[in-house]
Formats: sequence, C-alpha cells, structure tokens
Amino acid sequence: MSHSAPDHLLERMLFFSDAVFAIAITLLIIEVHVPELPRGSPAADYGTALAHLIPSVVGYVVSFLVIARSWITHHAAFAHSPRFDASLLWPNIQLLMIIAFMPFATAFLAKNLGAVVPTLVYNVALMIASLLSVRLVRKATALGDAGQIYGPDGLAFLRTRGLGVFFAALLALLLGLLIPVYSEMALATAPLWVRLLKRRSQARLGETRQEMVGG
Amino acid sequence: MSHSAPDHLLERMLFFSDAVFAIAITLLIIEVHVPELPRGSPAADYGTALAHLIPSVVGYVVSFLVIARSWITHHAAFAHSPRFDASLLWPNIQLLMIIAFMPFATAFLAKNLGAVVPTLVYNVALMIASLLSVRLVRKATALGDAGQIYGPDGLAFLRTRGLGVFFAALLALLLGLLIPVYSEMALATAPLWVRLLKRRSQARLGETRQEMVGG
Amino acid sequence: MSHSAPDHLLERMLFFSDAVFAIAITLLIIEVHVPELPRGSPAADYGTALAHLIPSVVGYVVSFLVIARSWITHHAAFAHSPRFDASLLWPNIQLLMIIAFMPFATAFLAKNLGAVVPTLVYNVALMIASLLSVRLVRKATALGDAGQIYGPDGLAFLRTRGLGVFFAALLALLLGLLIPVYSEMALATAPLWVRLLKRRSQARLGETRQEMVGG
Amino acid sequence: MSHSAPDHLLERMLFFSDAVFAIAITLLIIEVHVPELPRGSPAADYGTALAHLIPSVVGYVVSFLVIARSWITHHAAFAHSPRFDASLLWPNIQLLMIIAFMPFATAFLAKNLGAVVPTLVYNVALMIASLLSVRLVRKATALGDAGQIYGPDGLAFLRTRGLGVFFAALLALLLGLLIPVYSEMALATAPLWVRLLKRRSQARLGETRQEMVGG
Repeated sequence: MSHSAPDHLLERMLFFSDAVFAIAITLLIIEVHVPELPRGSPAADYGTALAHLIPSVVGYVVSFLVIARSWITHHAAFAHSPRFDASLLWPNIQLLMIIAFMPFATAFLAKNLGAVVPTLVYNVALMIASLLSVRLVRKATALGDAGQIYGPDGLAFLRTRGLGVFFAALLALLLGLLIPVYSEMALATAPLWVRLLKRRSQARLGETRQEMVGG
Repeated sequence: MSHSAPDHLLERMLFFSDAVFAIAITLLIIEVHVPELPRGSPAADYGTALAHLIPSVVGYVVSFLVIARSWITHHAAFAHSPRFDASLLWPNIQLLMIIAFMPFATAFLAKNLGAVVPTLVYNVALMIASLLSVRLVRKATALGDAGQIYGPDGLAFLRTRGLGVFFAALLALLLGLLIPVYSEMALATAPLWVRLLKRRSQARLGETRQEMVGG
Repeated sequence: MSHSAPDHLLERMLFFSDAVFAIAITLLIIEVHVPELPRGSPAADYGTALAHLIPSVVGYVVSFLVIARSWITHHAAFAHSPRFDASLLWPNIQLLMIIAFMPFATAFLAKNLGAVVPTLVYNVALMIASLLSVRLVRKATALGDAGQIYGPDGLAFLRTRGLGVFFAALLALLLGLLIPVYSEMALATAPLWVRLLKRRSQARLGETRQEMVGG
Repeated sequence: MSHSAPDHLLERMLFFSDAVFAIAITLLIIEVHVPELPRGSPAADYGTALAHLIPSVVGYVVSFLVIARSWITHHAAFAHSPRFDASLLWPNIQLLMIIAFMPFATAFLAKNLGAVVPTLVYNVALMIASLLSVRLVRKATALGDAGQIYGPDGLAFLRTRGLGVFFAALLALLLGLLIPVYSEMALATAPLWVRLLKRRSQARLGETRQEMVGG
C-alpha cells in the first residue's frame, strides 16, 4: 500500500463527510418533480411535460457534477493525511453545511429559470463552497505528508484547484446579470479554470526552480 | 483472507458509491404516496386506494431489484481491485448519476402507467446505467488481479453480465411501444439474459481452449 | 480483539445494509408532516395541531424501535461471520427491501389510524421482515464461528429472536381486527416474546444435555 | 497510531450512528421549501420570497450546527473505546431517535416563528438530546482508556460538555416564553456554556489535587 491509512478518528470524520456528500448529491433528484398526467394523455403532452422539466434535469446534472468535483477534491486532500486533528472538524462541517444547502439552491434556480435572484443565490453558494473547500484542503495537506508525495507543484495545484469552481461560478454570476437563462453554461468552464490553475502552479514552480538554479 | 483489501483511497470511493446506491434505493419509497382517507371510510375504500397504489409498489420492487443487481455487480467488480486509480473516479460518478436518477424515472413510470414516454425514459435510463456499469467493470477488473482469481471465463462473464439489464430494458422498451402496461414485466427476463451471457462466455472460452489445444 | 474482522467483501455488504437501515429509520420523520398555522394563532390551536400529530409521532417511535431492533439482530448475526459468501446477497437484499418499505407502511398506518387495511399492511410487513431476518441470521451464523462463540443455547436464541417481532406483529394484527386504534400497543410485547424465546431455547438445550447425560 | 482502533462490532455501531447523524443533518434542507414564482416576476418579488425564507434558513443553520456539535461529542466519546459492549446499543439508539427527530422540530419552529408551542417542542427536544448524549458519553468513556488518555480533567469535561446545549436550550426555552421570535439566538450561547463547564471541571480537579496534596 503506497498510502498510509488514516487513523480511526480521521476515518470517522471522512466517513461522516462522505455520507453528507452522498446524501446531498442523491437528494438533488427529489427536487425534480414527477409530472402526473391524466390517463390516456397523448404522447405530445408527455413531450411538453418533459420539456418543462429540462431546467430541473439540467440543474440536477450540473449540481451533481459540481458536488462530485467537490467530493473528489476532498478525497484528494485527505489522501495523505494519516493523522486526525481536531482543528479539521469545524472547517469540514462548514463545507458540509454549504454542500447540504445545494439541493435547495439548485431547485430554487431550476424552478425560476432566468430570474436574477436565484442565479445570485446559486452561484454565491458555489463560490462560498469553493473558498471553504480551498481552506479545508490547505489545513488537511498541512498535516500529512502530502507535500512529499505530490511534489511541490502537485501540492500547489491541489491547494488551488478548488478555485476552478469559484471562477466558473463568478463567471456564471456575472453572465447571470446580463442573460440569466444561459448563465449556468458558464459552469462548464470549471475544468478549464482547473487546467489554467494547474499550468500556473507548474509555471510558478518552474520559476522558483530557475531562480534556485540561477541563484 | 482470500482477497487483498483495497487501499484506503479505493475504500473511500467504494464507500461513497455504496452510500449513493443505498440512498437511491431507499428513496424509491418516497415516491409511493401515502393515501389518506377520511376517518371511518369503509375497508372497501382502502382496498381501492391500495389497488391504485399497485403500479407504484410494483415500480418500487422492480427498481429496488434493478438497483440492487447493479450494486452487486459493482461489489463483484471491485472484489479484487486493491489499488485506487484516479481514472476510476469519473466513470464511477457517471454511473452514480444515473443510479440516483432512478427514483425519478420510477415514479414517472408508475404515475403514468401505460404511457409511452415514461416507458421510454425509464428503460433508456436503465440501458445507459447498464452500459456505464459495463464500462466501469472493465476499468476496475483491468487494474487488479481479477483475471487470476476469477479465471478467464469468470472474468469474461463479470465483464458482460451488466448487459443482462441492457437486454431486458431493450425488450421492455420495444414491448412498451406496443403494450406499455405490461412492458415492465420484460425486466424480469434480466436473470435469463445474464444466464445466457454466462453460457456464451463459457462457450467462447471453450472454443479458445480447443483452438489452443487443436492448434 | 476477541472477534475476527470480516473480510472486505462482507464489510462492504454490511456497510451497504447499515446505510439502508440508517436511511429507512431516518426517513420515518419525513412522513410526520409539519403543521403550519396562521401567524398569531393562539397556543391552544398549536396544542390541537400537536394532538393531531400524536398518531404520527407514536408511529415514528414504534417503527424507529422496530427497525433499530432489526438492525441490532443483523449486527449480532454477522458478529462472527468473517467470510463473505455470495449466497448471503439476495436474502440480505430481500430483508432490506422490506425495511425500506417501512416508512410507507408507518405513514399509511399513522394517517389512517383505526382503519383495518393499514393495520393489516403494517403488521404483515413486520411479519415478513421478521421471517426474512430469521432466514438471514440462519445463513449468516451457519458460515462463521458463531456456534463456538455464542455456545449452543446462545446460537439457538440468536437464530429465533427475530421471531419476537413476528409474534408481536401477529398479536397486533389480530387485535387490529377487533380494536384497530390500540392494536399497535401489542408491538410493545416484542421484548416479552424475545425473553420467552430465550427461555425456551435454554430449556430445550437443558433437555438435550440431560438426555445426553442420561443416555 | 496513538489511538487503538475500535473492534469491528463497535465500528459498525459507530458507522450506523454516523449515517443517521449525516442523514438527519442533510434532511434539514428538505424542510426549506423552494419558492416558485410566476415567470418574469420582478427581482423585488424574489427578494420578498427570500425574506420569508429567513426563518427556515436560520433554522437550517442553527440545527445544522447543533447536530454537528452533537456528532463531534459522539466522535470524541468513542475516540478511545476500542471495545464493543452490548450495553451501548440502546442508549445510542435513543440518542439517534431524538437526533432524527430534529428535522421535524426545526421545520415546526421555522414555519411558526414566534409561537410558543413550537419553541417549547424544539428546545425540549434539544434538552433531551443533550441529556441522552451525556449519558452515552459516560457509558462510552467508562469502557475504554479515555481516562488515561484525556487525563482526569479532560475526561470530566468530556463527560459534561454535552450539557452546553442543555443550558443554551433551557435559556432559549425561558426566553421563548417572553419573546419567542428572538429565543433561538440563545442557542448561540452553547459554546459559552461549554467553556464554563470546561473551566469548572478544571477548577474542581484543581481542588481535588490540592486536597490530595494538602491531605
């Protein structure tokens, strides 16, 4: 085994977090309300009913991917933190509180598509989640051997990659003030921001190395 | 212990997956709405109310069994994959996204029994779940010692058995275009398809062996 | 450690089961609908609203205890089963299917207090759960070292104690045909039946020993 | 590893408890109902809709923090209890029953802000949760090496810190009889009570030591 296993106190904290992530991500579907048509309605009516559901289904998919990405970052952050530390508890719970809030924010957005206020609520929630995630990752990676295992550029990237969602949500929020209906598409840029952050952390490391060599 | 235990990163991913499977399977019951009759209604009225619930209860049972079967395949796929690999993350999350969607598809079908569109949505969702499951099983069994432990025919079967649900859902879909009310019965053929796939993978292995011997 | 730990395949199955038990037990509260009174309603109106909730709250408590008891039996059954066996999968899933059904049965009963049909549905569900639990316990204890660890009378008791709920639910069902409103009180006899089953398994063991000695 | 890991029977009990805590904490958001406004409503209407949600959102945050605090106490209580004991089962389940009840109590309070009865129900539920938590902590720490690891004052504090919520809820309840709208603010005093309990347990230990030295 290349990774040292976490102690049982950290394991329990991760377990509790995984459960909250899993419940929040699965509860998303509850807010997609099931259409019930009168018996014998023509197929066209069902088509219309489905069309009305598109915002809810898109909201389901987008929020599912965003929460999944957040869980993946959480998973990576604690990959090399074998030791529990009580200072992790509250930053972790604050992150979980905003993750558990996402089913509400998603439904508020999906049921009021094109309105500015729900777009603000949704994207500000994502931005807070992103910042809380970055803070937790910093705390988690400061405790373990993450530095040695990931290398300095890997660690620098891990510590900033949570910001990918931040920039995507900020873009979505700004776009939302102009054309709310298409604003959520901006969230699809999250992987691009992550790639940009990766390149930047590698470039910065490169400079540091050159300086070290050059000096 | 005959199986090598997964490392803690894989364990956490499996744990997260189990939680999503468990929540999706338990949420199915939420969509079976509880009838509330006026006080003192005769038993016959309760009988009628229960009769109206039959499609929902059948939907609950069928989807429970389908999700359970999908979980069992997931369980078998990772039985001998002791090592976490980041390439497993997204294929796994895509599978979970369609599993978490099943409570919606089930309720849509049960509340509009006999309509074509919900039958399409439900069975296409199952077919996608089946394909994503097969893809994940292939990835998972490529990483560990599954080949040595299951033997070549066992492995070939494990890698295709997820298709049992695919063929059953395809049959249900085709039947749904003709007589939607009984279409879901076709899902009961899933175990038959699985048996057929098993025999086929054994037969194919037999041929390969004969060729090897004969050659 | 006096118990040998289960292998990771059994652990995953137990984990999945625990999650389903935990979700079913926590979902019970969702069916207790929150009264919303007009602003400034007098306290007496809130009292009335609470009084109307009594059947739901009693249903919550009774079903919580019944599911908890069922989980405790599951926990004891697998206490000494270190080895996973694929033959456990479906009996376990059948038990989970009826456990996940309990939030519906509970709400159906609580919202139609005093009606015969919901009383039948609820108690028959409990009786099925009880029988499925006994079957699973037999399978689980046949695989591990439970016999040696619990001793023959402990094992005999473990294998029958799931029937405590069966007899209590049967009594509740019979009482339900006469005076449905108080029928659920009969479930409080479950611990008595369990004690009776315990004494009986000890007595029977005593006879066997005497026969062996006397023979 | 400085902590001895729990045996697998205790681990399963902790796991089940974590799942119930996680589900209860995540279900809180379900009771915050999503406003759905007519298409094209002005932003001001959304502002009003959000303003009406403030009690629900505050209730979400407060109950999230209270349940999280309760989980943290549970986590600390079992940090050094490596051995499962059947006498832990029912005290633990009683605590879980009141934790799983909190989503109802929270919604009842939030939807009837300023009413006395919901304030009573909410705070009495918290006080019961607090007492059940203290009882469970005593049982759990009596079994393991907690005394040696935490030291006598650490242990004394751990065993009483659950009362922080008790005193905060009692204050909220008393305030609720006078000015219900602001009563929940009293819950923010929980950390203060915890600090007070900490100082008191240290002071008492100090006296004991002086007596021992003086004697």
